[in-house]
Amino acid sequence: MSDQWDVIVVGGGPPGENAASYAIQGSGRTAAIVEKELVGGECSYWACMPSKALLRSVEVVDAAGALAGVRGATLDVAGVLKRRDQFTHDHDDSSQVEWARSVGIDVVRGRARITGIKEVTVGERVITANHAVVLATGTTAQIPPVPGLREALPWTSRDATNLHEVPSKVAVIGGGVVACEAAVWLRALGAEVTMLVRGKALLARSEPFASALVAERFAELGIDVRFGVDVERVSRKSPADTGEGRVHGGPVDLVASGETLVVAEVVVAAGRVPATDNLGLDALGLPLRNGFVEVDDHLTVPGHEWLYAVGDVTGRALLTHMGKYQARIAGTVIAARAEGRPLDGPRYRDIADHDMVPQVAFSDPQVASVGLTEAAARSRGIDVETVEYDLGNVAGASLHRDGYKGRAGLVIDRTSDVLVGATFVGPDVAELVHAATIAVVGKVPVSTLWHAVPSYPTVSEIWLRLLEARGEESQ
Amino acid sequence: MSDQWDVIVVGGGPPGENAASYAIQGSGRTAAIVEKELVGGECSYWACMPSKALLRSVEVVDAAGALAGVRGATLDVAGVLKRRDQFTHDHDDSSQVEWARSVGIDVVRGRARITGIKEVTVGERVITANHAVVLATGTTAQIPPVPGLREALPWTSRDATNLHEVPSKVAVIGGGVVACEAAVWLRALGAEVTMLVRGKALLARSEPFASALVAERFAELGIDVRFGVDVERVSRKSPADTGEGRVHGGPVDLVASGETLVVAEVVVAAGRVPATDNLGLDALGLPLRNGFVEVDDHLTVPGHEWLYAVGDVTGRALLTHMGKYQARIAGTVIAARAEGRPLDGPRYRDIADHDMVPQVAFSDPQVASVGLTEAAARSRGIDVETVEYDLGNVAGASLHRDGYKGRAGLVIDRTSDVLVGATFVGPDVAELVHAATIAVVGKVPVSTLWHAVPSYPTVSEIWLRLLEARGEESQ
Repeated sequence: MSDQWDVIVVGGGPPGENAASYAIQGSGRTAAIVEKELVGGECSYWACMPSKALLRSVEVVDAAGALAGVRGATLDVAGVLKRRDQFTHDHDDSSQVEWARSVGIDVVRGRARITGIKEVTVGERVITANHAVVLATGTTAQIPPVPGLREALPWTSRDATNLHEVPSKVAVIGGGVVACEAAVWLRALGAEVTMLVRGKALLARSEPFASALVAERFAELGIDVRFGVDVERVSRKSPADTGEGRVHGGPVDLVASGETLVVAEVVVAAGRVPATDNLGLDALGLPLRNGFVEVDDHLTVPGHEWLYAVGDVTGRALLTHMGKYQARIAGTVIAARAEGRPLDGPRYRDIADHDMVPQVAFSDPQVASVGLTEAAARSRGIDVETVEYDLGNVAGASLHRDGYKGRAGLVIDRTSDVLVGATFVGPDVAELVHAATIAVVGKVPVSTLWHAVPSYPTVSEIWLRLLEARGEESQ
Repeated sequence: MSDQWDVIVVGGGPPGENAASYAIQGSGRTAAIVEKELVGGECSYWACMPSKALLRSVEVVDAAGALAGVRGATLDVAGVLKRRDQFTHDHDDSSQVEWARSVGIDVVRGRARITGIKEVTVGERVITANHAVVLATGTTAQIPPVPGLREALPWTSRDATNLHEVPSKVAVIGGGVVACEAAVWLRALGAEVTMLVRGKALLARSEPFASALVAERFAELGIDVRFGVDVERVSRKSPADTGEGRVHGGPVDLVASGETLVVAEVVVAAGRVPATDNLGLDALGLPLRNGFVEVDDHLTVPGHEWLYAVGDVTGRALLTHMGKYQARIAGTVIAARAEGRPLDGPRYRDIADHDMVPQVAFSDPQVASVGLTEAAARSRGIDVETVEYDLGNVAGASLHRDGYKGRAGLVIDRTSDVLVGATFVGPDVAELVHAATIAVVGKVPVSTLWHAVPSYPTVSEIWLRLLEARGEESQ
């Protein structure tokens, strides 16, 4: 293996893989991915894939229980964990490495550091890029500076997704997407779950009706959610690193807002920090923003046209699909620059990260949204109006399951008559949001949406109800 | 009750209900719906609602069986039928009548006949409309002229959706949406099912890959599908009309392409005929098209500005959601004309029926499509290209269920770079199509769709795969 490639990508998660493959696609250029853990990254082994694999069986058992025509469905805990392991390939990345090689990407194992212009050092080995270096190192779990917490060896999202034993009693620190999803599967698998939320809402960046519906359902599920809680200190008897997804020692005493909680395990889901330590970025004089790498809309680091960043490490949107999107653009830009082509097509520019980001929380209920919430739109000075409608009143939803409970809302820019945001909350709403994403990104006027007829009786008929709720103005 | 209303609607299915309510909405105008059976119509009691109520439990049991983490789910046949009865309110339309009254619509029971301009006769009673009469009488099942078939008292879709006893062995005549859906639930509820299809494909108006996947799955389900079959004659011992959804007599001998089949019941799902007989349309000199009422894009009968038609009776698209859409437009047009307003907004014109119609067949797999198939587009002289991709290769689909099998395709107009059609085939694809409907109706360029990022890991990521499969051209 040479020590020189056209493109070197640091970090082999989905964004890194996409950046490399788009940069070389069909060109004869060479690329290497430097990966210190597993090719496939956080998403494949410790985040999206295992979490959704755990949640899907939970959802189906729940759906079966909500239909008068189905009986007897139960969760097979061992089966759920085994299915999860199939999706994480038991942490064997050989199929991903094989994919990389099949598309002409070499894999270099080790920890990378930028040591010069187009120069990366992996361990002792110095490798160079003819065209571009792409940073795709992602983020790691943030452990809040609570006395005793780090020493207690808490679970991070990695342990929660890779659990082998279900702890009897868990405290989840956090109220965001990762916290809410973990709470759902831990509860469904049999744990007693207490959520300790610093703020006043679950999924606090969502529309208030989403936060409220999730909190209401969590109460039904027996998840004890406590708001406005400060975790003060943690102590644990005989902490022991027994491996990922295993109970890490004796019982944990956790003091939160003056009250002591004794649990088998603490799950920390309190945000992420960019994995930019020891990357050598200081020496380049890069201005990091809270550790995140700033890039322009070509995903290029300003002033360093050979250096790109994609995925979570940019801080643009900490979501696999947005990282992959950025990577497609970065790869396309790298290819164009390598070939001396101008960057003047719509594919060379990150458009979606500017307030058109979709996200699905696979909690119970699911929360699927795109673009701006009402509050975010107003804070940007957009003159918006909103409409909301109960999903349970849509025929398709009532057929979908007995007692369907959910709600959807649109945020409409009055000036341009286009959607700038949409939120869907309810069972199985994950697939509803892409219609809104197309409407937002395509800037389809609401008066035109009126002619996009949803099929009867699908849950998508919520669109009709929302437009009807808006009334005369959408004529 | 007076004998005069502003608007008289003949037929109380969803299109009739919508036409009436949109015509009077907030205006103080009066409206009456004339209904000879049940307010709520075919859809509520004999079609969409009961069929989807039957199919939903089947889908969930199937989904549970396809997940390693779920065990024990079985179909509770009595529970399924009972749930169906809840959705059809045991054929009691009082809640619909109550809704009508609550929005200011009177219900007149009986069979209507147009007996003059703005004049309708119901039995002996002559009623008149100040502004408009709307025909919304729908269709009825067509019984092919096969010797002995009608005398054998076959089941129509009404019996199949309202079944009380599951016949041991059924022959389904037809291969369209109604036939395919009925075959799925009859099979799941325990019947042996043979489908006798005159042509060479199931769902023959769909993309060929859709027909193929449904046929493949039907074979797995043990549904015996026979193509190119002519049903020659039928005979039945002691036929007896034992009521809707009950077995109608002794065994049926059915001779098809020379072979004799003995079944407990024959289900005829071989098309629909417009319910325009005895409506008095001949006297008006209306030119019917195969019995369907021709209307312009204001849903008005040309030359009779007081007369409208909406829903299946127009033959535009035999789908509840399209009927409701037409009804919203007709109602809005009636209101505007009554108030002397011009019809110059986008809401006054039927746009979607011009090749932008979405449809979902809730068969197994589901087939959800919008707009034109490749063949239909080419027959209209549109220069199209197509892309297809296997849904099973999308991460979200593999999480959704083990062994997910499905396929999707886009039909793209090369000249305008917009979608003119899309088809999704697979379990639970019903909610995927609305995104395509918005893209088609909104004429969103494919280069813009590239920035409509699907969330990971949803099944909607099929959009990314399709656009990637199209490759460089979509830059």
